[in-house]
Amino acid sequence: MKIDLNCDLGESFGNYKIGMDEEVIKFISSANIACGFHASDPLVMVKTVSLAKESGVSIGAHPGYPDLVGFGRRNMNVAPEELKAMVQYQIGALNAFCKASGVKMNHVKPHGAMYNMAAKDEKLALAIAEGIAQVDDSLILLGLSGSQLLTAAATVGLKCANEVFADRAYEEDGSLVARTKAGAVITDEEEVIERVIKMIKEEKVKTITGKEISICPHSICVHGDNPKALNFVKLIRERLLQENIKIEAL
Amino acid sequence: MKIDLNCDLGESFGNYKIGMDEEVIKFISSANIACGFHASDPLVMVKTVSLAKESGVSIGAHPGYPDLVGFGRRNMNVAPEELKAMVQYQIGALNAFCKASGVKMNHVKPHGAMYNMAAKDEKLALAIAEGIAQVDDSLILLGLSGSQLLTAAATVGLKCANEVFADRAYEEDGSLVARTKAGAVITDEEEVIERVIKMIKEEKVKTITGKEISICPHSICVHGDNPKALNFVKLIRERLLQENIKIEAL
Amino acid sequence: MKIDLNCDLGESFGNYKIGMDEEVIKFISSANIACGFHASDPLVMVKTVSLAKESGVSIGAHPGYPDLVGFGRRNMNVAPEELKAMVQYQIGALNAFCKASGVKMNHVKPHGAMYNMAAKDEKLALAIAEGIAQVDDSLILLGLSGSQLLTAAATVGLKCANEVFADRAYEEDGSLVARTKAGAVITDEEEVIERVIKMIKEEKVKTITGKEISICPHSICVHGDNPKALNFVKLIRERLLQENIKIEAL
Amino acid sequence: MKIDLNCDLGESFGNYKIGMDEEVIKFISSANIACGFHASDPLVMVKTVSLAKESGVSIGAHPGYPDLVGFGRRNMNVAPEELKAMVQYQIGALNAFCKASGVKMNHVKPHGAMYNMAAKDEKLALAIAEGIAQVDDSLILLGLSGSQLLTAAATVGLKCANEVFADRAYEEDGSLVARTKAGAVITDEEEVIERVIKMIKEEKVKTITGKEISICPHSICVHGDNPKALNFVKLIRERLLQENIKIEAL
Repeated sequence: MKIDLNCDLGESFGNYKIGMDEEVIKFISSANIACGFHASDPLVMVKTVSLAKESGVSIGAHPGYPDLVGFGRRNMNVAPEELKAMVQYQIGALNAFCKASGVKMNHVKPHGAMYNMAAKDEKLALAIAEGIAQVDDSLILLGLSGSQLLTAAATVGLKCANEVFADRAYEEDGSLVARTKAGAVITDEEEVIERVIKMIKEEKVKTITGKEISICPHSICVHGDNPKALNFVKLIRERLLQENIKIEAL
Repeated sequence: MKIDLNCDLGESFGNYKIGMDEEVIKFISSANIACGFHASDPLVMVKTVSLAKESGVSIGAHPGYPDLVGFGRRNMNVAPEELKAMVQYQIGALNAFCKASGVKMNHVKPHGAMYNMAAKDEKLALAIAEGIAQVDDSLILLGLSGSQLLTAAATVGLKCANEVFADRAYEEDGSLVARTKAGAVITDEEEVIERVIKMIKEEKVKTITGKEISICPHSICVHGDNPKALNFVKLIRERLLQENIKIEAL
Repeated sequence: MKIDLNCDLGESFGNYKIGMDEEVIKFISSANIACGFHASDPLVMVKTVSLAKESGVSIGAHPGYPDLVGFGRRNMNVAPEELKAMVQYQIGALNAFCKASGVKMNHVKPHGAMYNMAAKDEKLALAIAEGIAQVDDSLILLGLSGSQLLTAAATVGLKCANEVFADRAYEEDGSLVARTKAGAVITDEEEVIERVIKMIKEEKVKTITGKEISICPHSICVHGDNPKALNFVKLIRERLLQENIKIEAL
Repeated sequence: MKIDLNCDLGESFGNYKIGMDEEVIKFISSANIACGFHASDPLVMVKTVSLAKESGVSIGAHPGYPDLVGFGRRNMNVAPEELKAMVQYQIGALNAFCKASGVKMNHVKPHGAMYNMAAKDEKLALAIAEGIAQVDDSLILLGLSGSQLLTAAATVGLKCANEVFADRAYEEDGSLVARTKAGAVITDEEEVIERVIKMIKEEKVKTITGKEISICPHSICVHGDNPKALNFVKLIRERLLQENIKIEAL
């Protein structure tokens, strides 16, 4: 049994520092590296690719909407054709740094509002999947388990991977419970860890209604932007290893 | 005998249109395509790569400073390490569109202030040349004849090509006469064409002082941003062909 | 009887030119001047304020979303509090140029997606109206006739003005027929002019269903971004004057 | 005897936080508030103006070059006419928030590369001073003691104030010793404080060569972007008060 631990890295910008990249990278297997639209700049990208290389962590592009002030978290009404071009642009930019560093880009995970909108919108999801496949069909599209992104990847013949969120409650249809609903976020660390282990070992998760549904997690999203988040990454890593679950890149 | 005719293309941005790309592309052999820093956006890049492909014109990246409002024409005090990253970012972005279109990127020509500053500054020139070589050492660096850019290309083992300006006067040391000096720009079309033919056939140019110096032109920079410029491109192309000089990409 | 003719001006940016500002300004009474978010830059704003002053045309701010590449035409999910700050920022910026030129800013008309979203969304409309009132409660908010923007202006005690679109069909509830529906845009110039005259003289407009509804137009939106649009502005101005309708700023 | 303590505030941007504004504001008398070009955004500006108002701290605009990724610290070759427009734009934007909060903007201090370039370049300095005077001639221009900025303010009839740097060594001509020279920065806190007190009480400072020159400080620049800087601000404030020097806005 194995699982990938992915984390968004390289989100600093110019004089602005965000995240504890040097710390969290020790505990993860895949880094989603921001590409300059919602966060990051060319120098930050150089440094982050270099850090991932030294740490033996697999590299993925983390393209976002061109909304630095909103950190790519605001829905924008971008046409599929333009979205496709945005994604290709950002993948290409990161790939230049990978080539310069002699490492291979392994996956693509859309960021923030782009990820969420494409999870539900077939046309946006297809634009992203096609965009990636046209540039490099060996890339893996990492998307929300059960989302349109993964369907689109299958449609265009792109490899994909199911991302699950350790601390989020699920609806019976496998979608995430909206953050606006009570119980959407699970705050008890022990409960979170047990859910993750159950997902990996039994491929099942108990929904917010109490029913068990099937789930097939390939990668767990973790955060390293504050000391508490960082501690949780250490903890989940330890517990997974104790359960003989390997932490391995996609 | 042969020469390349290069032109800056793909400088539109969003709702803003600049240039007569569809017209001028019929007469040139190489397109320098803007990469989103001083001009262009992902959709414009898609369309420009596609236009170049259909027209059988060789594609080059045209990276610039991150100064859209100044069109990349203002000197900026960018450190060599950051300049290198900027260039790699932009090359990579354009390359994604080339890969998606199934065409090969052939050269890189820095834009505006980046081109001019690197022509005279060894460190900036090296940063650009190294940046390119690290990403793809089969790329050709197109720089001002006699400039630091070409020296830097040689230093890092990158192929390079000498760019000449048909309508600009030269100093005895092979540099361009500064635009602030009288006689810097040659306005007589016939004189311009004769100078170009002499450069190609005899590898010589008469300087502003009247002395002849050696010059070895690989590519001539032409413009297609207004009807007059476009007519001149047609004319120079005709005259070169009459002289049995082939128009051929680098 | 009188009416205001308003036009969006000052939408050029750096090296990019859009619009025929110098021509259209001769025929209008109010200029909506872009403020650097969806279009324009500080130098363009200086020139446009100066042009309006020389032409005796009333000046309004034309704030938009921070989306230069999308020209402010894409819906963005901006929180009311941030929208309010965006509007205040842009009004303030334009006002500096008005003060430097010794002219008074007279109105505010939101641009593109901001205008359209706020027309239907009470919270966004209130954010805009409150934002304006806090900065200068003598400003007039120019919004779509019958929209939430005008309701919000009334709520916060701000003067407002009803904008009508000469070439757009209306639904029975006074809203514009969506562009996606057949008949949404009226292309016959004579019909457009007659509709406008009827709106002003009789305060009535025939809807797409054939029913007549009341309408009270204070300002008509015209365009001057191409020769055909410009000719139409001349024509409508002439016809209004023939009908003894004065063209007068709000 | 009195002195102003000024600090750059409001330099956060979107999701990115910089500085300890809430802490340092307790100890200063004037806040230079970033205006969205080199740092800040409309929401940050609202919050910073509000914080300054609550703290009873005098407000100044802190305009910078449009270079967010470089934090306005990179020299840019901006023409005087454009610089003037940039400054007016930013002053106006901040002023909207001041008007909305019912506070008065008191001064303007250019930021980073704009401050340094204008200190030495007469044309740039005049562009800034004229730009301010045209918008509001009651504003005070805060510039480096002995610099072109202050000369320009006098030329256009604008009030000005001499800024001194507590921890920087001075040349005999009153200019700052370049950071590249040994001894440019004074690191001993006690020495720094004694220099400041001497400047205020005796209007003299010992230069790097050992000679005493005259200096007339109106405002001291302090920093609050890290705990050590913050502690120093507390210390210098305490010591000034012990010396019966009032801390008072310009």
